[in-house]
Amino acid sequence: MIIGVLGPKGTYTEKAARQWIEKKELENEAVLEYCADIQDVFFLLEDGGCDIGVVPMENSIEGSVGVTMDMLMEGEAHIIGETVVTIEHCLLSRGKKEDIKIILSHPQGIGQCRHSLKEHFPDAELRTTGSTSHAAKLSTEFEEMAAIASPDTAEVYGLNIVMPDIQDRKHNHTRFVVITKLDDDELKDKLKSDDPDIAYKTSIIVYLDRDRPGALYSILGEFAKSNINLTRIESRPSKKVLGDYVFYIDFEGNISDAIIKDAIYNIEPQVGMLKMLGSYPEFDSHCESN
Amino acid sequence: MIIGVLGPKGTYTEKAARQWIEKKELENEAVLEYCADIQDVFFLLEDGGCDIGVVPMENSIEGSVGVTMDMLMEGEAHIIGETVVTIEHCLLSRGKKEDIKIILSHPQGIGQCRHSLKEHFPDAELRTTGSTSHAAKLSTEFEEMAAIASPDTAEVYGLNIVMPDIQDRKHNHTRFVVITKLDDDELKDKLKSDDPDIAYKTSIIVYLDRDRPGALYSILGEFAKSNINLTRIESRPSKKVLGDYVFYIDFEGNISDAIIKDAIYNIEPQVGMLKMLGSYPEFDSHCESN
Repeated sequence: MIIGVLGPKGTYTEKAARQWIEKKELENEAVLEYCADIQDVFFLLEDGGCDIGVVPMENSIEGSVGVTMDMLMEGEAHIIGETVVTIEHCLLSRGKKEDIKIILSHPQGIGQCRHSLKEHFPDAELRTTGSTSHAAKLSTEFEEMAAIASPDTAEVYGLNIVMPDIQDRKHNHTRFVVITKLDDDELKDKLKSDDPDIAYKTSIIVYLDRDRPGALYSILGEFAKSNINLTRIESRPSKKVLGDYVFYIDFEGNISDAIIKDAIYNIEPQVGMLKMLGSYPEFDSHCESN
Repeated sequence: MIIGVLGPKGTYTEKAARQWIEKKELENEAVLEYCADIQDVFFLLEDGGCDIGVVPMENSIEGSVGVTMDMLMEGEAHIIGETVVTIEHCLLSRGKKEDIKIILSHPQGIGQCRHSLKEHFPDAELRTTGSTSHAAKLSTEFEEMAAIASPDTAEVYGLNIVMPDIQDRKHNHTRFVVITKLDDDELKDKLKSDDPDIAYKTSIIVYLDRDRPGALYSILGEFAKSNINLTRIESRPSKKVLGDYVFYIDFEGNISDAIIKDAIYNIEPQVGMLKMLGSYPEFDSHCESN
């Protein structure tokens, strides 16, 4: 089984993928395919180059990952799982702190360390890379370069940890989603099935017609009336016109539950578009190690 | 009157500031102070280095500007106006298209051209800068560098337009907000007052206690019941723990209207925190040129 992740070796996405692989007891079958950026994980999946993809969805400091949200809207991938990874950014370099002139990382990494960077490196040039580990790899080239990445990455690329804990807040977590294009039958053949008794979560995207004010309230009412707990509601531009949005809604429950099916059935006629992204086991922080 | 904007010369923020200056008939008094990045506009304002600041809030392709939202939450700035600018990204360089190896822009500029860049420059290195015009300025140094910026910026820095219309979607607009720390009395002395008959908009931030599911629904109900039209609802991480959010809500109406006052009065006891960002004249695309 080929699993597409953000590369090169050492990304937080790889860590997320390994957590999921372990949970699914796929250690012997899973082969990681490293992609240059998040978009490429989706493209690889769409082209049949991998069975499963793992991509970051939201971070507790910097918020949603726009590319992931847009690609979920545009493509055919659906979500079959999620996992949460503790983020522990360090500043890695070949050189010393005083030599650093250029700081590289994924835009989310830079965003999560914005205040720290401003304080410690007000004059440094910031460069974005496709991933934190790509930043680390590039930093091996010059002493004046440093990367924001995980401490494990320092070991992979032989860099020094110039500053540990460079993120703006101590507690920093990223939620990743596991995506696929395989249908239920194909998945059953390849994956250990999830325990149906554990808590599930469902993700949808809805587009509300602009000429129906109060539509969002009305949709939330469908959830409230059935006591369905929303875990996340996030808007993204519809990209048609400024002020026009699609909403990404995550809620507790499985689409196979009658109560969820009914809620979706009631919501569908009220919205311009409803895209089902999938039902999947909720990440349980009590049972997992990261 | 000093107005802090994203610099150097030639940013879309400068264009937004000039639009607002013209509307307020401040051409003779306004002096622009160019800042290195969005955070610095807020810092300059907080430190009393400018009277007014202009910052980007949301783009029709790439969505909200996280830094602006976070700084509005953290600091003392409030919103007194908004304006919308048409974005027309070009690829600017000293060199030719085939020479380009490095592409620079503000992270929003890169995000708005993501598909285009992937198609035309799959191997180019992407670097973020504090602004689109800073990217243009840096691009004057090497022929292998190009900037995503406005066509006007090409003229300012003597660059060629290597590719016009590089953005992923033809229609591209950014909404900017005008911020200040001045109170109403100080503003009255300095600014032409807004016509009270024009349409107003109000922006608030609310934090919903996590142990009150349905709180968002209940708040939206207060707006619905008074027929107050929401124009935007956006979540940002509370930065405390993953899955915990604050909501930015924009709605039609002025806090001096009884109906809005009542709604806020009803909402306050239902939320963990309510921050009033301000009431200000809604941007009217029919009356403005950009």
